[in-house]
Amino acid sequence: MNETVLTPILDLLDFAGIAVFALSGALVAARERQTFVTMGFFALVTGVGGGTVRDLLIDAPVFWMTDPWVAVICLATALIAWFTPVRMWDGKLLDYADAVGLAAYAVLGSAKAIAYGIPPVPAALMGIITGCVGGVIRDVVAGRPSIIMQPELYVTAAALGASLTVVGMQLSALLGVPDAYVWGTGFVAGFALRAAAIRFELG
Amino acid sequence: MNETVLTPILDLLDFAGIAVFALSGALVAARERQTFVTMGFFALVTGVGGGTVRDLLIDAPVFWMTDPWVAVICLATALIAWFTPVRMWDGKLLDYADAVGLAAYAVLGSAKAIAYGIPPVPAALMGIITGCVGGVIRDVVAGRPSIIMQPELYVTAAALGASLTVVGMQLSALLGVPDAYVWGTGFVAGFALRAAAIRFELG
Amino acid sequence: MNETVLTPILDLLDFAGIAVFALSGALVAARERQTFVTMGFFALVTGVGGGTVRDLLIDAPVFWMTDPWVAVICLATALIAWFTPVRMWDGKLLDYADAVGLAAYAVLGSAKAIAYGIPPVPAALMGIITGCVGGVIRDVVAGRPSIIMQPELYVTAAALGASLTVVGMQLSALLGVPDAYVWGTGFVAGFALRAAAIRFELG
Repeated sequence: MNETVLTPILDLLDFAGIAVFALSGALVAARERQTFVTMGFFALVTGVGGGTVRDLLIDAPVFWMTDPWVAVICLATALIAWFTPVRMWDGKLLDYADAVGLAAYAVLGSAKAIAYGIPPVPAALMGIITGCVGGVIRDVVAGRPSIIMQPELYVTAAALGASLTVVGMQLSALLGVPDAYVWGTGFVAGFALRAAAIRFELG
Repeated sequence: MNETVLTPILDLLDFAGIAVFALSGALVAARERQTFVTMGFFALVTGVGGGTVRDLLIDAPVFWMTDPWVAVICLATALIAWFTPVRMWDGKLLDYADAVGLAAYAVLGSAKAIAYGIPPVPAALMGIITGCVGGVIRDVVAGRPSIIMQPELYVTAAALGASLTVVGMQLSALLGVPDAYVWGTGFVAGFALRAAAIRFELG
Repeated sequence: MNETVLTPILDLLDFAGIAVFALSGALVAARERQTFVTMGFFALVTGVGGGTVRDLLIDAPVFWMTDPWVAVICLATALIAWFTPVRMWDGKLLDYADAVGLAAYAVLGSAKAIAYGIPPVPAALMGIITGCVGGVIRDVVAGRPSIIMQPELYVTAAALGASLTVVGMQLSALLGVPDAYVWGTGFVAGFALRAAAIRFELG
C-alpha cells in the first residue's frame, strides 16, 4: 500500500480510536446520570488523555491543540451518547471497539515516540501510556477501580503491540522492511490478545 | 476603561482567584485535621492546578514558575486557614467566592489559549480546564467524590463563560469591539449561572 | 570531594533513589496479586512520577525520555519484586530506604529547579514535588489513601530538605561555600527527620 492510500486510512483509524475512547468515557458519566457537560468532560479526558501525556513527555506539541477536529469529535461523541439510551451500548461490541483503539494507540504512540528520537524502552512505554492512560484518568476521576488494578489482560495487550512495534522498527531499519508491515503486525497482535481476553475472560 | 487602569485590576482579580481556590484546597485538608505542610500542598495544587494544566497543554511557560508571588500567595492562604477555626469558613460566602474564581478563570484561560493561537473549540476547553481542574485534582488526591461527578451546575457555568469568551473574541476581531467587553460579559454570565446554582440549588 | 568523584556518586544515588521508589510501587501492585505488567506500570509511575512533574513544570526535557536506563531500572525492579515473596520486603528497612529516596529527591529537585532559573519559593516546591508526587500518583491510581492525607511527617521531611537546599544555595553563592555542602546538609536534615518519624512514629 502506498502512502497516498495509507495516510488517509491512518487518519481515519486515529479519529475512530479517539471516538471509541471518548464514547467509553461518556458512558461512564451517562451511567451515573450526569449532565451533558460532565459527559463531554469525560469523553474528552478519556479520548485524548493518553496521547496528551505522551506528547508532554516526548516534548511534542499536544495533538489536540493543533488539530481543531479532535475536541469536536470527542464532544460530538458525548452528544451521541447523550441522545441514545445507555443500554444500547451494553454488550461486548464496545469492548471489542475499545480493543481496536487500545491496539491502534499502542502502535501509534510507540511509532511517534521513535520518530521523536526517544530510546527503545521508553518508546515502548509511550505506546502503553497512549493506550491506557486515558482510561486510567477516567476511572480515577470517576472514583472507580482503575482498569490497571484489575487482573485482566489489558495493559499486557498494549505492551505486546508496543513492544512488537519498537523491536520491529529497529529491525525494519536494518532489513529494509516497510514500517507499515511492522505497524500492522503490532496492531494485529495487540488486538488479538485483548480480543482473546474479552472472549475467554482471561486474566 | 483604559489599559493602565484595567491591567492592575486584572492582576488583582487573578491573585484573588488564586487565593480563593487555594483557600478551598487548604480547608479540605483542615477538615481532615492535617498538618500545615499538607494544607500548603492542597492550597497549592488547588490554586494553580487548572492553570498549570492549561499552560502545559498550550505550551506556555507554567505561570507560577516565572511569577514568584503565586506560590507565596497559596502558602500564605494556607497559613491563614491554619490559624483560623474551620467553621469560620462555613456558609455560602466561600461558595460565592469560588464562583468568582471559576468565572474569572474560565474567561482568563480561554483568552490566554486564543492568544497562543489555539483553535476555538480547544480554546474554550482550556477555559473550562483552568476553572475546574484544580478542584478535581484536590478531590481526587483527598479521595473525595469530585465536583465533576456531582449533578451541580459547576462545569456548566465555566463552559458558559468560556464559550462566550471564545465566540465573543472571534466576533470582536470582526466588529472592532474591545476584548474587555467580551471578557466582562463572559465573566458576568459564568458567575451569574454558578451563583444561581448555589442560591437555588440547581443541578 | 572533587567533581570527578562526586558526579558518579550522585548518579549512583539517583539510580538507587529511582529503584527504591519503583520498588515501593511494584510492591503495592504485588500485594494486590497483580500481573507483572501492572507491577511494571506502578514501578515506573512511582519511580519517575515526581521527577516527571518537576521537569514538565520547569520546562526541562523529561529525564527518563533522554536517559535510556531509568525505565530499564524501574522494570528490572518490578521483575525483582515479581520473583521474590512480598513478605521479604516487610519490616522497616524499606521505609528507611524510602526515606533516603525522599531526602535525595527533595535536594536534587530543588537544585535542578534553581539551575533552570526558577525563583526560590517555587524551587523549594519542586523539591517537595520531586520527592512526594510519585507516591501520590501510585496511591491515587491504586485507590489507596494517599500519604499526603496521613498525619505523618512525610511531606514535612521533604519540605525541610528542599528549604535548606534553596536557602543554602542562595547563601553559598554569596559566601563561596561549595554547593555540595549545602546538598549534603539538606539531605541529612531531610533524612533525619523522616527517619525519626519512622522510628518514633511521629505525626
